[in-house]
Amino acid sequence: MRLLAADPSVRIEVATAHAQAGKPVEEVHPYLAGRVPLTFVPFDPAAVAGMDCVFIALPSGEAMQIVPALQGKVGCIIDLGGDLRLPTAAMYEHYYKKPHTSPTLLGAAVYGLPELHRAKIRNATLIANPGCYPTSVILALLPAIEAGLISPAGIVVNSLSGVSGAGRSSAVELSFSEVNESVRAYKIGNHQHQPEIRTVLEQVAGTGVTLSFIPHLIPITRGIYTTVHADLRTPVPIADIQKVYADRYRDEPFVRFGTRIPEIRAVTYTNFCDIAVFLEPHTGKLVVTSVIDNLIKGAAGQAIQNMNLVFGRPEHALLK
Amino acid sequence: MRLLAADPSVRIEVATAHAQAGKPVEEVHPYLAGRVPLTFVPFDPAAVAGMDCVFIALPSGEAMQIVPALQGKVGCIIDLGGDLRLPTAAMYEHYYKKPHTSPTLLGAAVYGLPELHRAKIRNATLIANPGCYPTSVILALLPAIEAGLISPAGIVVNSLSGVSGAGRSSAVELSFSEVNESVRAYKIGNHQHQPEIRTVLEQVAGTGVTLSFIPHLIPITRGIYTTVHADLRTPVPIADIQKVYADRYRDEPFVRFGTRIPEIRAVTYTNFCDIAVFLEPHTGKLVVTSVIDNLIKGAAGQAIQNMNLVFGRPEHALLK
Amino acid sequence: MRLLAADPSVRIEVATAHAQAGKPVEEVHPYLAGRVPLTFVPFDPAAVAGMDCVFIALPSGEAMQIVPALQGKVGCIIDLGGDLRLPTAAMYEHYYKKPHTSPTLLGAAVYGLPELHRAKIRNATLIANPGCYPTSVILALLPAIEAGLISPAGIVVNSLSGVSGAGRSSAVELSFSEVNESVRAYKIGNHQHQPEIRTVLEQVAGTGVTLSFIPHLIPITRGIYTTVHADLRTPVPIADIQKVYADRYRDEPFVRFGTRIPEIRAVTYTNFCDIAVFLEPHTGKLVVTSVIDNLIKGAAGQAIQNMNLVFGRPEHALLK
Amino acid sequence: MRLLAADPSVRIEVATAHAQAGKPVEEVHPYLAGRVPLTFVPFDPAAVAGMDCVFIALPSGEAMQIVPALQGKVGCIIDLGGDLRLPTAAMYEHYYKKPHTSPTLLGAAVYGLPELHRAKIRNATLIANPGCYPTSVILALLPAIEAGLISPAGIVVNSLSGVSGAGRSSAVELSFSEVNESVRAYKIGNHQHQPEIRTVLEQVAGTGVTLSFIPHLIPITRGIYTTVHADLRTPVPIADIQKVYADRYRDEPFVRFGTRIPEIRAVTYTNFCDIAVFLEPHTGKLVVTSVIDNLIKGAAGQAIQNMNLVFGRPEHALLK
Repeated sequence: MRLLAADPSVRIEVATAHAQAGKPVEEVHPYLAGRVPLTFVPFDPAAVAGMDCVFIALPSGEAMQIVPALQGKVGCIIDLGGDLRLPTAAMYEHYYKKPHTSPTLLGAAVYGLPELHRAKIRNATLIANPGCYPTSVILALLPAIEAGLISPAGIVVNSLSGVSGAGRSSAVELSFSEVNESVRAYKIGNHQHQPEIRTVLEQVAGTGVTLSFIPHLIPITRGIYTTVHADLRTPVPIADIQKVYADRYRDEPFVRFGTRIPEIRAVTYTNFCDIAVFLEPHTGKLVVTSVIDNLIKGAAGQAIQNMNLVFGRPEHALLK
Repeated sequence: MRLLAADPSVRIEVATAHAQAGKPVEEVHPYLAGRVPLTFVPFDPAAVAGMDCVFIALPSGEAMQIVPALQGKVGCIIDLGGDLRLPTAAMYEHYYKKPHTSPTLLGAAVYGLPELHRAKIRNATLIANPGCYPTSVILALLPAIEAGLISPAGIVVNSLSGVSGAGRSSAVELSFSEVNESVRAYKIGNHQHQPEIRTVLEQVAGTGVTLSFIPHLIPITRGIYTTVHADLRTPVPIADIQKVYADRYRDEPFVRFGTRIPEIRAVTYTNFCDIAVFLEPHTGKLVVTSVIDNLIKGAAGQAIQNMNLVFGRPEHALLK
Repeated sequence: MRLLAADPSVRIEVATAHAQAGKPVEEVHPYLAGRVPLTFVPFDPAAVAGMDCVFIALPSGEAMQIVPALQGKVGCIIDLGGDLRLPTAAMYEHYYKKPHTSPTLLGAAVYGLPELHRAKIRNATLIANPGCYPTSVILALLPAIEAGLISPAGIVVNSLSGVSGAGRSSAVELSFSEVNESVRAYKIGNHQHQPEIRTVLEQVAGTGVTLSFIPHLIPITRGIYTTVHADLRTPVPIADIQKVYADRYRDEPFVRFGTRIPEIRAVTYTNFCDIAVFLEPHTGKLVVTSVIDNLIKGAAGQAIQNMNLVFGRPEHALLK
Repeated sequence: MRLLAADPSVRIEVATAHAQAGKPVEEVHPYLAGRVPLTFVPFDPAAVAGMDCVFIALPSGEAMQIVPALQGKVGCIIDLGGDLRLPTAAMYEHYYKKPHTSPTLLGAAVYGLPELHRAKIRNATLIANPGCYPTSVILALLPAIEAGLISPAGIVVNSLSGVSGAGRSSAVELSFSEVNESVRAYKIGNHQHQPEIRTVLEQVAGTGVTLSFIPHLIPITRGIYTTVHADLRTPVPIADIQKVYADRYRDEPFVRFGTRIPEIRAVTYTNFCDIAVFLEPHTGKLVVTSVIDNLIKGAAGQAIQNMNLVFGRPEHALLK
């Protein structure tokens, strides 16, 4: 809403909520004071019928119950959660620890990564907006996999995320005193973004991919730092690898490929993904680092980028 | 000095400094007010001759000039810098970007990791206190390498460090506004702790080791989080690996091996290293995570642990 | 427990809890791993009868229900909460928003500020350990009020507190993302520590005191920064005021009065309170700043200081 | 530049620098990569002659040397530093610790606080952009002083600032490890923003004003929290005071007056100033709290707001 409210050509018509229904938006989100003069209402499909675009941002398991009631009634549905991203109900159940109750939706949505599916997004009516970690990891690996530079087996991904990635939460382990001045890895081997990353990379590679994805929680509010190690199929000079990446992303409005080591603060509050590649001299492995703002390119910004594509607006509208 | 000052059986006799010489210790370090009633003096070998123990904490290249003047004049020298840690002058020059002017010192010092060299430390008169990153990485890998569980090739180490690891610095890139709410990897492929880690692990393995070490700067003051990926030589159940680690560290006073994923805040302001091991299910790789306080187990605490060993004191004196 | 566990002359016999009963202490508090080999048990007066010392740290309203069952059965009770600190049930009810069910306890406890009541504490069996804000504010004002330097009316107190002051909490407004990179004042005019501060200062002044106490939540874990403005009764040179403070605190083991502007990091993880005084040149007001670690001098450290006094131990035992 | 670069109707023609001259803007400021394709050049009056608008952001003492060379050569000069803000050279020298070498400039610039001088700003060719602290303090007090509600004597101002207020600095005392997890007051009684605040308030009040201004450095990057205590001339119900403030700011696009206690995170990265007023019940004093982003409403945002006014653009252009 913060991003959308800045553009008079976009009108926010309805804001829905559960626990906060009945409260003014600006009471729940003081930074929207004077900018979004709406009151949260309970969700009702009838109230949003006829809208051009509906954004869904719900806990896992809830979007799958709402989407069927909206399909055909609104111009485009963009779901920011994970309910529409995986290919099978079994995979969903394994990682999200709950059954998928609308399995026909799986595969029905376009995976909304513009750098990969821009043409399809332009014609989509149902978009699965990518997860925050997957956005940073897939963009880091896409050129190398497309070009067949790296082995698809044994890829090692270490990602560091700010706390806003967990949503607005009252969990003790996300309280300031537990997070501040600390770091912890979590969900080693079973994070729900692992199969999302793998599914997309396998589609690109046309073959199986195995990767280890280790997420870490660090004491910042916004931002993801991803460091990838992968084995080259055959030795390649770093300059050649850099050329592959530079060519792949030259015309992308929101990917900045360069030779400096990326840092999160360069992308905070923006829709940019900064990427750099290195050859580690002792192991010969390819190292790729990427950074995004998990709330922008990793969530709301990418959703707006998709909205812009669907509605024929400039792709960077509202995003710079 | 903060740690040493708490024990009446230890007397801090002399505190030396360059730029701060002439100032009371408590003016430079307000938290020592009322605890260390000394004034910094310029370094002078004569002034410290006869001391039981001398701690050296200087920028690289300086300890090598001082140690020869102290040898034989004091009971024990514990150097917290990197001048005495590497085996050859060539390796030193490559990573520290300056020549080693006292190459005869290389190999003369005991590498002060009690978990590896406790017996030698007890009789040492010259100790190279381990680097902060190496402490966290070596302790994470030691049992697996000793037991021959993992391949010594292609080990991937991602470490995250708090800012105090860089010392007291006026560099713009360590200013609050540049570090806060950000993360950046640095010295990819050429950090001076890589050869230190590799040298120690190769001595343990009795063979060559290759590893990629990627350090990251994160916005905390104290703490290191290390996440290691290594390939098992042959598949082994996780319980067996846990047993190897538990047995190896059972009697270590400052290593806590467990099954919980470590977090930095559990070790801040302590000399503990917390370690846990996992089998990543998609790649089959061994994942080890370890945490230390870089200023305690990664520096001053380990130096005091070494001092305790040298002087026959309880190993945990001053450290709990 | 972290502080107590470091001294072999102290034995932690029982640790009680409600929701966490049945869990090992080190599971709830990983930093105590290997240091406190106890399991939390539900509170039971019989289980603690005969102990030398019982520390109570409970939400407001609960200590008042437990203390009567313990009186006479244990050597000394030290309550870290607010149930025993105020003089009247009416005042308690007004600020704590609940009735006081054991009003006979009010006035029965010694207010455990050693700098004010050391002799009484030595003989106490029931101690009301001071609140964190009151400790920092009372120590800042004590010498000036005792010496009659300032007017007791219209004192302005601005205090900044780290988040640990709120206890271990799952409140959304204490989550990392809501606290980080932000500040907010709270409970303007109705914080429960205002009457505690006022009551103590009025006892010292022998007359009524009015003060405005504005607490602010800031994004640090530990520490309180207090800045006080007060009107001098008559103009006094700053040197004279400094002498009053220096004389008052000369022999106090945990108050460091000086001329430098205090900073929180000098007292973090210590039992010290650092204080300085200034004359503001434009208004002529006395400005006093003080800092403490709210978890040490503002809570557990002061409780141990009191325990040391009660049991004739060195006052700084366990605290340096 | 970040703000200006988002609007195609604004063209950044020249970016000047001293030490960084010759470097691409995006090398010095990575977050501007792909957005500001300029290289820093040394300052040269000839190179900027003919520009519509010149922004000056220099250390104190430098703008006063440049402004005379630009007057009459460019459309409008907006100085973000302190050289043009004070009324007399003596006052400048006292607080900035250096002589003012262009005293004829004093009084020549319009003080660029739109809420106070909007009409004058529209016609200005030389604007002194207000300091960050003064913006937050003056907006907090303006309605109360204009309406004669408070006594102009003995006003107490406590302000908390993020570290970016000190500029891009390599000072050790602004390094992460010294600022993080700490707070310190500084320049008690002699901060250069005190006379700026006082000068403006005295113009509004038409009489002398005395105030104590205590700035504190806190560990956030952006934001100022100001808490003011003032004595009411005569008792007034809080509702009446709220009405005075609400009326005064009703049509201001960037002041949000409300009844909630302000918090910094509601204004970060925006040009808003949030304000609330309270009657402290024990002292009867008026308490006003205000928050701004020191880099936006406290600096660059307000400069752009002034530019918008000068050039007849919508006042909120580029700022929401």
